[in-house]
Amino acid sequence: MSEEALPNKNLRIDGTRLWRSLMEMAEIGATPKGGVCRLALSDLDKQGRDLFREWCEAAGCSVTVDAMGNMFARRPGLDPKRAPIQTGSHLDSQPTGGKFDGAYGVLAGLEVIRTLNDNGIETEAPFEVVVWTNEEGSRFAPAMIGSGVFSGTFSLEEGHGKQDKDGKTIGGELTRIGYLGTAPLGHPVGAYFEAHIEQGPILEADSKQIGIVSGVQGQIWYEITLTGQESHSGTTPMPVRRDALVGAAGLIEAVNRIGQAHEPGGCGTVGMLQLHPNSRNVIPGKVFLTVDFRHPSDQALALMDQEIRAESRAIADKHSLDLDLQKIWSFPALEFDHDCVAAVTRATTQCGYSNRAIVSGAGHDAVYLSKVAPTGMIFIPCADGISHNEIESATPEDAEAGCNVLLHAMLAMADRD
Amino acid sequence: MSEEALPNKNLRIDGTRLWRSLMEMAEIGATPKGGVCRLALSDLDKQGRDLFREWCEAAGCSVTVDAMGNMFARRPGLDPKRAPIQTGSHLDSQPTGGKFDGAYGVLAGLEVIRTLNDNGIETEAPFEVVVWTNEEGSRFAPAMIGSGVFSGTFSLEEGHGKQDKDGKTIGGELTRIGYLGTAPLGHPVGAYFEAHIEQGPILEADSKQIGIVSGVQGQIWYEITLTGQESHSGTTPMPVRRDALVGAAGLIEAVNRIGQAHEPGGCGTVGMLQLHPNSRNVIPGKVFLTVDFRHPSDQALALMDQEIRAESRAIADKHSLDLDLQKIWSFPALEFDHDCVAAVTRATTQCGYSNRAIVSGAGHDAVYLSKVAPTGMIFIPCADGISHNEIESATPEDAEAGCNVLLHAMLAMADRD
Repeated sequence: MSEEALPNKNLRIDGTRLWRSLMEMAEIGATPKGGVCRLALSDLDKQGRDLFREWCEAAGCSVTVDAMGNMFARRPGLDPKRAPIQTGSHLDSQPTGGKFDGAYGVLAGLEVIRTLNDNGIETEAPFEVVVWTNEEGSRFAPAMIGSGVFSGTFSLEEGHGKQDKDGKTIGGELTRIGYLGTAPLGHPVGAYFEAHIEQGPILEADSKQIGIVSGVQGQIWYEITLTGQESHSGTTPMPVRRDALVGAAGLIEAVNRIGQAHEPGGCGTVGMLQLHPNSRNVIPGKVFLTVDFRHPSDQALALMDQEIRAESRAIADKHSLDLDLQKIWSFPALEFDHDCVAAVTRATTQCGYSNRAIVSGAGHDAVYLSKVAPTGMIFIPCADGISHNEIESATPEDAEAGCNVLLHAMLAMADRD
Repeated sequence: MSEEALPNKNLRIDGTRLWRSLMEMAEIGATPKGGVCRLALSDLDKQGRDLFREWCEAAGCSVTVDAMGNMFARRPGLDPKRAPIQTGSHLDSQPTGGKFDGAYGVLAGLEVIRTLNDNGIETEAPFEVVVWTNEEGSRFAPAMIGSGVFSGTFSLEEGHGKQDKDGKTIGGELTRIGYLGTAPLGHPVGAYFEAHIEQGPILEADSKQIGIVSGVQGQIWYEITLTGQESHSGTTPMPVRRDALVGAAGLIEAVNRIGQAHEPGGCGTVGMLQLHPNSRNVIPGKVFLTVDFRHPSDQALALMDQEIRAESRAIADKHSLDLDLQKIWSFPALEFDHDCVAAVTRATTQCGYSNRAIVSGAGHDAVYLSKVAPTGMIFIPCADGISHNEIESATPEDAEAGCNVLLHAMLAMADRD
């Protein structure tokens, strides 16, 4: 794609309308600290989906839902044989999530549609705005299940069978909230773009408004259970204990140390931990915990995998614990499509926004879409790099800038021969 | 008390009947692994209380309940002016508790009454068998609240106000299950004995059938909250993290290290831990945990207190976390009443049981009773020293032996001038 001027170069989205939509969506599941709790397939998730559908239909789109609950709002193209240019993200949130993670990508897509409508612009390829089911992975593990099934990474049966901690399944919850649709799974996609907050500190620290995302770092998720012997805390001498939590403490520190040892780029996190029986005067007999490893280099990630396996084994042996370590999910480091990255670059430059290349630290639905379509991403800064937190924050100006880049990147891909 | 022969020296309890009662009580809240889950003031606790009341009334006792839900089953004495000789323990259990912890002391008391009835023996002082409310402290912290209020250690308001994790109070739950009684709180007690499984490995390792308990080690409970910054696990570089769980891991290891450093006798345990937000891909922003320290020496316990305060401060500073450390409960090391210990010794010797002196590692209602009455305890072995576990186990022979010692110790105190 050459550096020629963009078609409709001066076209701009309505930043005020985008911001208003973001704030209205954020009222659904709003938390006292200014964040959002809209867990996947909860009643609040349904409310968010209903509102999205209402807005899209008002904007003239037809909305379909597939068997994974993924929602597709389509604006027709001039050439009905062309595969749609998609954009989207998710409306589910972390338990204590923010207003922008996911919702920004969805509502930026809607704002693109509204802008095309306002300006009477027709495109060769159809445009689609997608809401992917259960991106966060906090209610149902792993993350990105909706786009995972759409892209053929998981089977529909796998997707429907995933359970939350109360044993409720995705299939059951989709039925319950009325979002088990009938649209065929996995239709062709001409190109996929996803706009998102960075969720890290790089753009802000570098005073750049747009991150041109070159790819996504690799990721591995583990589930580890350490089993010892529960016993009385006041009568069981220290030397004979098999305290699963003391072992878990060693593991938490090992995960942290491994992340640090693979800096820059390495991340190691224990985010979830469950104790059994979790009573003040009982030595913990069993601990379940999750590990999240990331690295932009697959080679480094493979080393991290070796290291945690060795450390877990050593810790279990040291404390006479039984070890069960399962790698439950992973994807390798990924480079986005050259044309899509070029389209984002050209849109950013011609709109005049400061920018830099960036690798995504987070997984996104774009990871799975990249298996079935040319894919690119656009990042905007978030305050202090903080995300997955109720205080997650972005500015109206940056949200507007990212949406303008999305508009022009999509237009460029929609109208190319 | 001299070494003269016991009155009714050849009197023995019915070990088969005692065992049958233990097994029948253990059916209430029975778990698949052979243990018991009968949390304080739950419906199952009410069922256990109802059964105890039925048995005591069938044995001719009058049963009264005080405003803390403590139950007193009284067998009259010849001299109505004498304060009762009490025995008892508790019927509540850990979430994954055993059949003997608490229930043994209560039902051994009932077996003493039944034996006196069978043999037409009357005593000068009345006998009382007591069920103390919420000894375990696992549903409502701290432990031993019923005996704590009876002994004036806590006020009735404090006792009633204690909340479980769902915000339900002891006062409310007593009312709900019908055990908010009207008997006056804290009547005089002539002497108090408590029979209990050891909950530790000492008697078994030493092949002794009876532990003559000389006292109880001191104990401190803490609640600690570490607060950092929750943030995205894939995009927050390791050096800028404020991971509350990494701090907690350091604390868990510090507690374990402090317990070990004060061996023999020292115990340090983190038994409960709660993470916020407890999501796989979120750096934990807040961790709440409990610490349980024990030592037979108050001096050592004071050192352990200093050490955990210093370590907590250092860990919080190292990981840029906010620290909230609360000492929520403690009692100093305790020596039981000389006459009561002598009565237990004499009963054990004259019944011909192998025995040794022992310090209780666990807290028991006897700790608070010792503030208002001469008090002693009798331990029997438990398999592998394991307690607060569904596999907790004791033998019918040891249960019978402990109950015979209880019978003769109570008789000796009831009939002395």
